[in-house]
Amino acid sequence: MATINDNYLKLKAGYLFPEIARRTNAFAQSHPEAQIIRLGIGDVTEPLPSACRTAMIKAVEEMGDRSTFKGYGPEQGYIWLREKIATHDFQALGAEIDADEIFISDGSKCDTGNILEIFGHNNTIAVTDPVYPVYVDTNVMAGNTGIANEKGEFAGLVYLPVTAENNFTAEIPTQKVDLIYLCFPNNPTGATATKEHLQAWVDYAQAHGAIIFFDAAYAAYITDPTIPQSIYQIPGARNCAIEFRSFSKNAGFTGTRCAFTVIPKTLTAKSSDGTDVELWKLWNRRHSTKFNGVSYIVQRGAEAVYSAEGQAQIQALVGFYLENAKIIREELINSGLSVYGGINAPYVWVKTPNNLSSWEFFDQLLEVVNIVGTPGSGFGAAGEGYFRLSAFNSRENIEVAMKRISKHLIR
Amino acid sequence: MATINDNYLKLKAGYLFPEIARRTNAFAQSHPEAQIIRLGIGDVTEPLPSACRTAMIKAVEEMGDRSTFKGYGPEQGYIWLREKIATHDFQALGAEIDADEIFISDGSKCDTGNILEIFGHNNTIAVTDPVYPVYVDTNVMAGNTGIANEKGEFAGLVYLPVTAENNFTAEIPTQKVDLIYLCFPNNPTGATATKEHLQAWVDYAQAHGAIIFFDAAYAAYITDPTIPQSIYQIPGARNCAIEFRSFSKNAGFTGTRCAFTVIPKTLTAKSSDGTDVELWKLWNRRHSTKFNGVSYIVQRGAEAVYSAEGQAQIQALVGFYLENAKIIREELINSGLSVYGGINAPYVWVKTPNNLSSWEFFDQLLEVVNIVGTPGSGFGAAGEGYFRLSAFNSRENIEVAMKRISKHLIR
Repeated sequence: MATINDNYLKLKAGYLFPEIARRTNAFAQSHPEAQIIRLGIGDVTEPLPSACRTAMIKAVEEMGDRSTFKGYGPEQGYIWLREKIATHDFQALGAEIDADEIFISDGSKCDTGNILEIFGHNNTIAVTDPVYPVYVDTNVMAGNTGIANEKGEFAGLVYLPVTAENNFTAEIPTQKVDLIYLCFPNNPTGATATKEHLQAWVDYAQAHGAIIFFDAAYAAYITDPTIPQSIYQIPGARNCAIEFRSFSKNAGFTGTRCAFTVIPKTLTAKSSDGTDVELWKLWNRRHSTKFNGVSYIVQRGAEAVYSAEGQAQIQALVGFYLENAKIIREELINSGLSVYGGINAPYVWVKTPNNLSSWEFFDQLLEVVNIVGTPGSGFGAAGEGYFRLSAFNSRENIEVAMKRISKHLIR
Repeated sequence: MATINDNYLKLKAGYLFPEIARRTNAFAQSHPEAQIIRLGIGDVTEPLPSACRTAMIKAVEEMGDRSTFKGYGPEQGYIWLREKIATHDFQALGAEIDADEIFISDGSKCDTGNILEIFGHNNTIAVTDPVYPVYVDTNVMAGNTGIANEKGEFAGLVYLPVTAENNFTAEIPTQKVDLIYLCFPNNPTGATATKEHLQAWVDYAQAHGAIIFFDAAYAAYITDPTIPQSIYQIPGARNCAIEFRSFSKNAGFTGTRCAFTVIPKTLTAKSSDGTDVELWKLWNRRHSTKFNGVSYIVQRGAEAVYSAEGQAQIQALVGFYLENAKIIREELINSGLSVYGGINAPYVWVKTPNNLSSWEFFDQLLEVVNIVGTPGSGFGAAGEGYFRLSAFNSRENIEVAMKRISKHLIR
C-alpha cells in the first residue's frame, strides 16, 4: 500500500489567498453591480517594462534559427544574467557576492520552500508573527513541526511577534534557534530593518551557528540609502545568510517568472558527524538534479532589467507603486486609522478600527466599500486586529478606493 | 547549530552528465582540431516551431498593455492550456482525463523529483535498471534509501533489471512494492511497452495498492498505433497511476520549459491511520504553496502546439528525429553491433563491442571518432556494457557520425 506524507494533514484547510478569493467571488456573484477594487494579493498590475519585452521578443526569434536556438541551459542560470545581478544588486552596494553564488530560479516562493530540502529535520526554526504563510506551510509539509493549536501556531516553531508594541521589530531570541526567516521590506507589515537590527541578527547567527533566510523580494522599494537592501551589506552575513530575490515586484514579473537565490560559498552547516558542509554545494546538487533552469526567453527578459533603459523603467515602475503606497498611507492616517509601513515598501499595515477582528474588517471593507484587502490574522496569530493593503494597482483605483474609505467607512 | 540533510552525502559525486561534459571538455582542450559530434545528452537541436514562436511573441506584446497584462496565473496552469491537453493528449486516445486533473509545470525533471514530497518515507520503491538517474537521486535526497554499494545500487530500492536477456521488459515483481517508476518510450533503452505489459503493471498496482509513476516524456515518438502513448489508455490506470509529460521532446521546449503532471481525482493512497487520501488534493496543495505557475508567455507557446499548424510542425519535428534514429540504428546494425531501441523512440541502445565497459567505449568513441555518447553504466549497474546514442542532432551530424563509426571504429 502506498502511503502519503501525513504532514500534509496538519495543514490548515485553506491557504489564505484562496479563502479571500472565495469570499470575494461569493460577494461579487450576489452583488453583480459592485465595482470591486482588489488591494488584497500583492500582484502587480502595470505593463512589463518595454526593455524586457524587446529582449524577450528577440529571444523568441533566436529560437527560430538552429544556429541561435537554445536547448537546456545551465541549471543555475546563464552566466550573463548571474554576472549582471552580482554587479548591480550586490557589488554596487559593497556586498561581496560573486556570479557563481547566484542561482536563477522561477520564483522566490519555490526557493523559500525548496531550500528546506538541504537542511536536516532537527533544526529549531524561527519565524516572525505575522509572517508570509509559505514559510510556515512548507515547514509543516517537510515534517519540521507538530500540529497547530487553536490560534494556528504549529508546535515546534518559534514565533517572534512583531506588533506596534515592539515597533514591528522582532527581538533577537534569547533561546537557541538554528534557522531564521527574515523578510525586509516586510510582507505583510511593510516594516524595514536598520543596519543595526540586521547586524544584531547576523551577530546572533554567527554566535549560534544559525542560518538566516533573508527574503528581499521587495528590496527595490527601499529608497532611503541608510536602509540596507541586501543582508550581505552587513559584515559577517556571508557566513550565516541565504538571500532570496525576485523580479516579480521590481520589474512586474509575477506572470513572467524569474527569481534568484544567493548562497555564499563561505556558508556552511553541520552534518550529523559535526563536519562543516558547504551549503552552496548541496543547493547546486539539488538545483541540477531537480530543476532544469529558467526559460531562456525569460532570462533574457530579466537581463534587460539591468540595461540603462531597463533600470530607468523599473525605477519608474517602483516609484509609481511607492506613490500609491503614500496615497493609501496618508488617506488612512487622515481618516484617523493607525497606519504602519507604506514607506520603502509596497504594503500598508493598518490597525483595524473599533477592535474589529481582521476578518470582520475584511467583510466590512468588502461589503461597505467593495474593497478587497488581506486580513492580518491570515499571516499569523499576532496579525489579528491588523489588515494589509497593497499598493499594487492603478492610480485611479487607489484614489477611488481611498475616497470610498474616507467617505463611507471610517467615522 | 544548523544541520544539513545528511542524505545528500550518500549521493555519488558526479551526476552522469557533468562527468560526460568534463571528459568531453578535457578532450576538446587537448585536441582543438577535433570536430566533436555530441550524441550524449538528450537535448533537441532544431528550431522551435513557428506556431509556438508566434504565440509567444503575441503573449509578450500583451504584457505591454495593462488591459492584457498577466500577473500571477493559476498555480495549476491556465485552463485553456489544460483543456487542450486533456482533449488532444488523452481524450482523443480514449483516456478519460479531465482538464483539472492536469497540473502545468516548468519541467518533468522537477515533477518526477517533487512528487515524492506528497508520499511517506515508508514506501518500498522500485526502479528499473538502467534508469533515468533523477528517479534514484531524488529518492536518495528524500531519505528513502540507505547508502550505495560498490555497484552504485542504493540500499532500500528495488532494482528491476532490463537487459537484452529479458527483451528490455522488466518482470512484474513477486515481492510487494509501493511506488514504481516506469518510463515508456524508455530513456535510456528506447524500449516501448505493449498494452499487455502495461496492463500487467496496472493489475499488479491495483492488487497491491501501489502507485505507478509513468514518465511519458517521449510519448510523441510512438508512431505504432498498437503501442499506448498514455498509461490511462489502460483500464484501471486512473486508480493507480500518475503520468508525467513534457513539451521538451515533441515541441523542442528544452530551453523554453513547459511540462505537466496528471493526477486523476480517483487516485488515493493511505494515511498512517489507514484512511484513503486523494493524491490530487495533496499535489494541488503542494503546487499552490510551493510554485507560482509557469510563465504566461511559455504557456501560450505550449498552447500553440495544439493548433492545426502546431500539430503539423511538431509531427515534422518528431519525424525528423525519428528518421535520425533510424539512420543510427541501421548504420550500427550494418557495422555488426547489437542494437536496440530507436523505433518509436529517439534513443538507440547499443551493446558495446569486444566486451568493453561502457566508459571504455565512451573514451574510445570520443578519442577515435570524436563522438560523445552516454555510457549505459551511468544509468545503473545493469546498463554496464551498453551505450546510449541520441537522435537529437542535425541530419548532417548524424550522417557524418555514422560514417566515422562505420569507417574507423568497428571492424
